[in-house]
Amino acid sequence: MDSATLLDILGNENRRKIIQLLANRPCYVSEISGRLGVGPKAIISHLGLLEQAGLIECSVDEQRRKYFNIANNMRLEVSVSPYAYTVSLHDIVFEKERKGETLAAAGKKEAPPRAEPSSVFLKLSSRLQELKTRQEELARMQQQLQAEYTELMDSCLDSLEGVARNPVECEVLFELLKNETTAAALCYNLRLHPSIINANLIDLAERGFIEYAIRNNQQYWRIRETGVEKA
Amino acid sequence: MDSATLLDILGNENRRKIIQLLANRPCYVSEISGRLGVGPKAIISHLGLLEQAGLIECSVDEQRRKYFNIANNMRLEVSVSPYAYTVSLHDIVFEKERKGETLAAAGKKEAPPRAEPSSVFLKLSSRLQELKTRQEELARMQQQLQAEYTELMDSCLDSLEGVARNPVECEVLFELLKNETTAAALCYNLRLHPSIINANLIDLAERGFIEYAIRNNQQYWRIRETGVEKA
Repeated sequence: MDSATLLDILGNENRRKIIQLLANRPCYVSEISGRLGVGPKAIISHLGLLEQAGLIECSVDEQRRKYFNIANNMRLEVSVSPYAYTVSLHDIVFEKERKGETLAAAGKKEAPPRAEPSSVFLKLSSRLQELKTRQEELARMQQQLQAEYTELMDSCLDSLEGVARNPVECEVLFELLKNETTAAALCYNLRLHPSIINANLIDLAERGFIEYAIRNNQQYWRIRETGVEKA
Repeated sequence: MDSATLLDILGNENRRKIIQLLANRPCYVSEISGRLGVGPKAIISHLGLLEQAGLIECSVDEQRRKYFNIANNMRLEVSVSPYAYTVSLHDIVFEKERKGETLAAAGKKEAPPRAEPSSVFLKLSSRLQELKTRQEELARMQQQLQAEYTELMDSCLDSLEGVARNPVECEVLFELLKNETTAAALCYNLRLHPSIINANLIDLAERGFIEYAIRNNQQYWRIRETGVEKA
């Protein structure tokens, strides 16, 4: 699934409620319809869309009733700020043999299958709480990074004024601060003729502000990395 | 803004494209309309919705033309997995005096305003790259945590079978694994009579699997924390 499909799905309140219910436990159409107070026809249409996207799947129980459950494991992150709009969707990958020791693996080791079931259960549950705490810590760290990113971008823009010799240079450097990119992408984004873009790129490179790297036969421009001194 | 409002906004492809454009640079209606190939009337309607939500704001330039820019700084995280659907939206807070040294602050210190503008710019830009790398690292760590969480939840469910004496206990413990909660919420979620829920809660507490804490005059049940040994 791509992030656009997921955002389209999550853009509907009833679909969000259905996902919420199914993440809690697998459900029948009648259950979902009753819980949401929405007719079964509309529910079936939403479920069809979710199933088509691979987000849910259905099974049949011993009484031949269809029930639905979440089939996917993924994480979506969206940042909106004055300098950046980023959307990233990651499928959660389960590596059977991860490098280093994971909490889950450690839990299994400390409590082998033959241990008292009650103590295994309590240990696993306490590790689950540890994981939740670590997730919250990481979320806080990411929020702080986003704040720092914005502040740093403000400072970069301030310092740009002392560096750029004309408005085009200013625009080019601003684009490259956000991401390394090709001359063609700069022409498109800044709506400027290739000859203007190229003249400015060459001048900025000569003054030691930018450099390029070749990847896939394409020239990618970026702000010069410090530490690598130019002769 | 709450997460539902943001998800409703992001559920439309053209609104996503508008946010993308504005995060790149402030734009006029005619620019957005031209870039998206969408009539100005539809663009104005989307912009109105975004402005009402506080996501964007408009200013007037010296030629009295209205332009729009992103007014917000926030981060949305959505996890969808068989055991959890979580949505969290955080406003990015800029603390003027953060504890500890931030990358942005360090950058400013090392390069005071009187330093050569070009070296300030290159240093700030290289810190910006550092920040991006750290953001990617944190994102990878969170994906790994989500994988561990799911694996751990699988193990917990396996061990539940050796602990629960009846299907209701199994359901109650499963609910408490996900979150601490009140008896009333359990009744609602499991669609069971309070007398049944309470009898099972008391029995599980007596056998040392669960415990409660009082907060805001409410009894919150949770899986017993290990380390605190029960007499």
